[in-house]
Amino acid sequence: MGGNVLGKNFVLVSFGESHGKCVGAVVDGCPAGLPLSEKDIQEDLDRRRPGQSTVTTSRAEEDKVEILSGVFEGYTTGAPICMVVWNFDVDSSKYYEFRDKPRPGHADYTARVRYGGFNDFRGGGRLSGRVTASFVMGGAVAKKLLREVLGVRVEAYTVKIGGVEAREVSDAGIERRYENPVRCPDFEAATRMIEVIEDVRRRGDSVGGVVECRVIGLPPGVGSPVFDTLEGDISRALFAIPAVKAVEFGSGVRAAELTGSAHNDPFTIRSGKIVTETNNAGGILGGISSGMPIVCRVTFKPTPSISKPQKTVDLTRGEETTIEVKGRHDPCIVPRAIPVVEAMVALVLADHAVTLGLIPPVIGGK
Amino acid sequence: MGGNVLGKNFVLVSFGESHGKCVGAVVDGCPAGLPLSEKDIQEDLDRRRPGQSTVTTSRAEEDKVEILSGVFEGYTTGAPICMVVWNFDVDSSKYYEFRDKPRPGHADYTARVRYGGFNDFRGGGRLSGRVTASFVMGGAVAKKLLREVLGVRVEAYTVKIGGVEAREVSDAGIERRYENPVRCPDFEAATRMIEVIEDVRRRGDSVGGVVECRVIGLPPGVGSPVFDTLEGDISRALFAIPAVKAVEFGSGVRAAELTGSAHNDPFTIRSGKIVTETNNAGGILGGISSGMPIVCRVTFKPTPSISKPQKTVDLTRGEETTIEVKGRHDPCIVPRAIPVVEAMVALVLADHAVTLGLIPPVIGGK
Amino acid sequence: MGGNVLGKNFVLVSFGESHGKCVGAVVDGCPAGLPLSEKDIQEDLDRRRPGQSTVTTSRAEEDKVEILSGVFEGYTTGAPICMVVWNFDVDSSKYYEFRDKPRPGHADYTARVRYGGFNDFRGGGRLSGRVTASFVMGGAVAKKLLREVLGVRVEAYTVKIGGVEAREVSDAGIERRYENPVRCPDFEAATRMIEVIEDVRRRGDSVGGVVECRVIGLPPGVGSPVFDTLEGDISRALFAIPAVKAVEFGSGVRAAELTGSAHNDPFTIRSGKIVTETNNAGGILGGISSGMPIVCRVTFKPTPSISKPQKTVDLTRGEETTIEVKGRHDPCIVPRAIPVVEAMVALVLADHAVTLGLIPPVIGGK
Amino acid sequence: MGGNVLGKNFVLVSFGESHGKCVGAVVDGCPAGLPLSEKDIQEDLDRRRPGQSTVTTSRAEEDKVEILSGVFEGYTTGAPICMVVWNFDVDSSKYYEFRDKPRPGHADYTARVRYGGFNDFRGGGRLSGRVTASFVMGGAVAKKLLREVLGVRVEAYTVKIGGVEAREVSDAGIERRYENPVRCPDFEAATRMIEVIEDVRRRGDSVGGVVECRVIGLPPGVGSPVFDTLEGDISRALFAIPAVKAVEFGSGVRAAELTGSAHNDPFTIRSGKIVTETNNAGGILGGISSGMPIVCRVTFKPTPSISKPQKTVDLTRGEETTIEVKGRHDPCIVPRAIPVVEAMVALVLADHAVTLGLIPPVIGGK
Repeated sequence: MGGNVLGKNFVLVSFGESHGKCVGAVVDGCPAGLPLSEKDIQEDLDRRRPGQSTVTTSRAEEDKVEILSGVFEGYTTGAPICMVVWNFDVDSSKYYEFRDKPRPGHADYTARVRYGGFNDFRGGGRLSGRVTASFVMGGAVAKKLLREVLGVRVEAYTVKIGGVEAREVSDAGIERRYENPVRCPDFEAATRMIEVIEDVRRRGDSVGGVVECRVIGLPPGVGSPVFDTLEGDISRALFAIPAVKAVEFGSGVRAAELTGSAHNDPFTIRSGKIVTETNNAGGILGGISSGMPIVCRVTFKPTPSISKPQKTVDLTRGEETTIEVKGRHDPCIVPRAIPVVEAMVALVLADHAVTLGLIPPVIGGK
Repeated sequence: MGGNVLGKNFVLVSFGESHGKCVGAVVDGCPAGLPLSEKDIQEDLDRRRPGQSTVTTSRAEEDKVEILSGVFEGYTTGAPICMVVWNFDVDSSKYYEFRDKPRPGHADYTARVRYGGFNDFRGGGRLSGRVTASFVMGGAVAKKLLREVLGVRVEAYTVKIGGVEAREVSDAGIERRYENPVRCPDFEAATRMIEVIEDVRRRGDSVGGVVECRVIGLPPGVGSPVFDTLEGDISRALFAIPAVKAVEFGSGVRAAELTGSAHNDPFTIRSGKIVTETNNAGGILGGISSGMPIVCRVTFKPTPSISKPQKTVDLTRGEETTIEVKGRHDPCIVPRAIPVVEAMVALVLADHAVTLGLIPPVIGGK
Repeated sequence: MGGNVLGKNFVLVSFGESHGKCVGAVVDGCPAGLPLSEKDIQEDLDRRRPGQSTVTTSRAEEDKVEILSGVFEGYTTGAPICMVVWNFDVDSSKYYEFRDKPRPGHADYTARVRYGGFNDFRGGGRLSGRVTASFVMGGAVAKKLLREVLGVRVEAYTVKIGGVEAREVSDAGIERRYENPVRCPDFEAATRMIEVIEDVRRRGDSVGGVVECRVIGLPPGVGSPVFDTLEGDISRALFAIPAVKAVEFGSGVRAAELTGSAHNDPFTIRSGKIVTETNNAGGILGGISSGMPIVCRVTFKPTPSISKPQKTVDLTRGEETTIEVKGRHDPCIVPRAIPVVEAMVALVLADHAVTLGLIPPVIGGK
Repeated sequence: MGGNVLGKNFVLVSFGESHGKCVGAVVDGCPAGLPLSEKDIQEDLDRRRPGQSTVTTSRAEEDKVEILSGVFEGYTTGAPICMVVWNFDVDSSKYYEFRDKPRPGHADYTARVRYGGFNDFRGGGRLSGRVTASFVMGGAVAKKLLREVLGVRVEAYTVKIGGVEAREVSDAGIERRYENPVRCPDFEAATRMIEVIEDVRRRGDSVGGVVECRVIGLPPGVGSPVFDTLEGDISRALFAIPAVKAVEFGSGVRAAELTGSAHNDPFTIRSGKIVTETNNAGGILGGISSGMPIVCRVTFKPTPSISKPQKTVDLTRGEETTIEVKGRHDPCIVPRAIPVVEAMVALVLADHAVTLGLIPPVIGGK
């Protein structure tokens, strides 16, 4: 009934609230022998942290990770790894209004119904974007495991903000994506994306976008259909990120308009390896990896927190009313979502790799 | 490692192969006391069956369900319900070629790698669309449970085939969707969709499309974030259907281009009930149902089986070659996918409803 | 809510009823490439079958297994393996009385409450010992997998019937256990056990006993504490067998009276291998295998079906009454439980071995 | 692969090590609206704490619980509840010897194999009895939930230490069990038990014992056979406690020697309620509660840490050697295990009660 446990053999447990003591993660099932330190996790947390540029909220969150268990003498021990980010004192006063007057586009109303009004609503509580810090902590462990043991790289980047789309997505651009604040591999598009974000911010509004994620180096044969497919497990994990409205693989929604002769990826041999000439499949056939890059796209809705007045209802009085959501909010969540998308994809792939024995219970030897 | 078990408390186990003895389903966790007969299941199986019109394959599959366990004196007993559809004798001879020469767009290659060549490749074996018959059997139980206990209706229908999109999706149209062979609520669009399918069929090609599914009557408060969200669990189940490339909720991929002020659904009161004026959320906020209709869209790729010659590789010889996939295939899988999409959505909702105690272990009394 | 799925990565799903169409099993997660035929499974089913001697019921059950899926060209395919034993026509008439007048020691009353009276009560329905045929089918696959891939042997045998205990349990005796009808490695004790059983049978009564199971060849390092311990998972599986009242490992209940200096097993080296001089641990320390034989003991209560009149209540009338359970019943369930105990232990070990990658997704190559 | 997640719908995740920063627990799936404070948890932790009498180790562990998440304004929120007990500075120096020279009866050797030597061996690390503090924290939540919502009481007490057995186990004795240091309801036996413990302590040895646990107030109909039986799930949870060698229900190992006519519990009616005259079943039939008290017995082996010299091997040198385990250890773990046994039983029952909807997602209203 809880819903805060992800995965089967490589497991992430998420806990903590936006305005509580901390946000935390327990990773259970990580093999023993992986070199791991707080530095490995901090790097991704820093990429998720707000206040890094004009396109994100200026709210200060230091977000320093502390590892509480599961690491000894610099290596994972095979025991559960508990990690926390302690929350600083925050001003929760403005949220008391939304307890009774749910913010449109937020989970205030549905959480109230689901938890009978006992939920910690401060800062969105458990259903705040802040909780994705726990995903990033778990994902950092998964990413390191995939990289060290299998040489797999998981890379997400922005491909769309509002009406602006990245045209050129090159390896070099992806490599350098963190050099622009929207994390877009197409730097020309990035400039226009920034303009879009600054424009909606000025208007007290917000805008959506699309993150693409590719996985390089995953061997063929990973996935367990008919239900534990790669697409199924990855999409499920991605929809845990607040604001996600769509998940596509390969050709995605464009597949509807294509013919089979245009969509089928012909098999061929390159450097002695079976590959496909195109990758409409997004690296997955029948729920199983083909050896081609996994490619998925994640659509984010515009941040629901906007400063314009909005219509809502007063749940206690049972009447219509109007609210304004004050404070500093991300006019576009996409740039900060990049490490979160990577985390979710990595968590799923680590789980599948452990399940299939590609990652053994002990790495290296002591 | 198996991957053929779906759900937590209301569970579907799928087994069987395209050209084996049968395709089967075990439903575990169905409450006792639900009136259930083979007729309840046959109706949905018939909708999935091929050979019903010019837009589907003319292959004859009788697909009669047999309930093997879990039903006694006309009611479910609380014990696992095993259901099978026995396969008729089929000609598997043509598939031996694809063992070594994988069909583009099919799972021949990835299954071979995943299962070391031991997989039953005949007719696509376990990764054939035929396996969705097991989903439909389980889904029929879930749908009946949701309808009888909660008054919930799960309705899927075609909204796009190739470049033709349904314009008007009305309650009346949805009600009558089975009156046209593409199961589209917009009958005018349906006519053009049929033309598109017949055109690609003539050219030995195929085409993709989009199925929309809506759920009416689900109370607010269903879903268990942060991981067991409605979107996550529904999308995971939908990606178990072969050929699905994208899953969207509410505004879906369009959300990327919208502003928050346009996307946020204002809360209001209608007939004393909290509702939203628009439904960009697709009936889900924070992974929890809002009481508004759940709306999701599923993109299907064009059927990979086309009669045109295609490039592939001979895996044994390690060289490039060409194949032709003969036989009768659906030029568009979308019309037959309608009951399958309904099944997957219903299975997930039944699981959540049981998990939250909305559906008790015993229905009615004896 | 169902409760009919056992295991995490190597999974057994049980279905079917005592007097329904069949008793069946689905094994999901069995690696591809295991040679498997109905003969492999039939052997263990035959050992569970009644009517083999004077110490078991004379009821005729042919119990021929049929494999419905998951095996192709003589090998497992990696797909779920569905197996069934079809039930013959049976006389269910006498059970209608027990619907309202629950038999003492049986699950008639508790099942009626749990399933609201909708349960198939004929022959005990789902809670009949007959359902263990599904355990044996799944266990046969697990045993073969353990034997072929890891060289592990799982061997159960009778060590106690009523007051008669086996004195000498030697390798040779265990090897020959099936040569006496009580399956006891101590043939002298076996003779007295048979007398005990025939004596209670004559008196229309029944008697309990103890089955010991040992596992030879399991490498050290198997088990995942703190919750997925070998003892925990094995005991859980064993308690699924009707009539089990206690599960002990190694020293078992005797441990209470021992001192640490007598109980601790000293480590030593034999033939270059780390072993312990004694095995009070039963081959498990901290929930993890030590490399010593796993040894567990399972206590079975006397068969509740006895022909003496018994006191019970009429649930409909709400008054006390008396019943007689007629028909042919096992005066002692222990001899037929031997292959069932082996099955449960093997299922758990196969699951752990698959989980830890000791058994890979594909065995051998094709 | 991790093994540190217990339960399905009411879930306990355990983390932390004996000599690490903390021992912690996450409870996921606890309904919203349960009044909960650190005081509720501290009470049981205090009962587990050492240094309370001459029969336990004099080691000082303050063991103050801190709730990190999931509680807001005095009530559970429905979000995961994370609780930790911070470890004080401890002297780990003596454990470095056991890294290479495993202590007999401890998990030093098996953990080293399982985790490739990367495990935190200090103080037994993850496989220390100290980890049961996390069970007690989770169990305290489960116990309160069962008590508040269902009026269920879970009560464990000592019934045997070495050769001394409790004769009289009365309600009054159980009520007052915490008044003697061995927590035995038979105060006369308690005196002799204390003598036994003090005697083995003087000799640098240790002794085992038996804990009985009874559950009062559980309604009939709880349990989900064939695999999710009450006995199976309870025994699995109990075997997570270090040193447990046997788990019995009702008549337990004595059942082997009884006849059916003596063992079957006759049904009768008392105050309009269906009960049984005896309770050899231990309150469970067919894996489902009967409404009679659940009764189970747990055998603990003697503490493996004894001060006598013991034979072991030097794993690095591959030769036999001798060690002495110095320091203060419990000569008998049984008295401190009482709240741990209660915790495990309560966790399982809470899980089953939530699964069957006996405990709803929200308690009370706000």
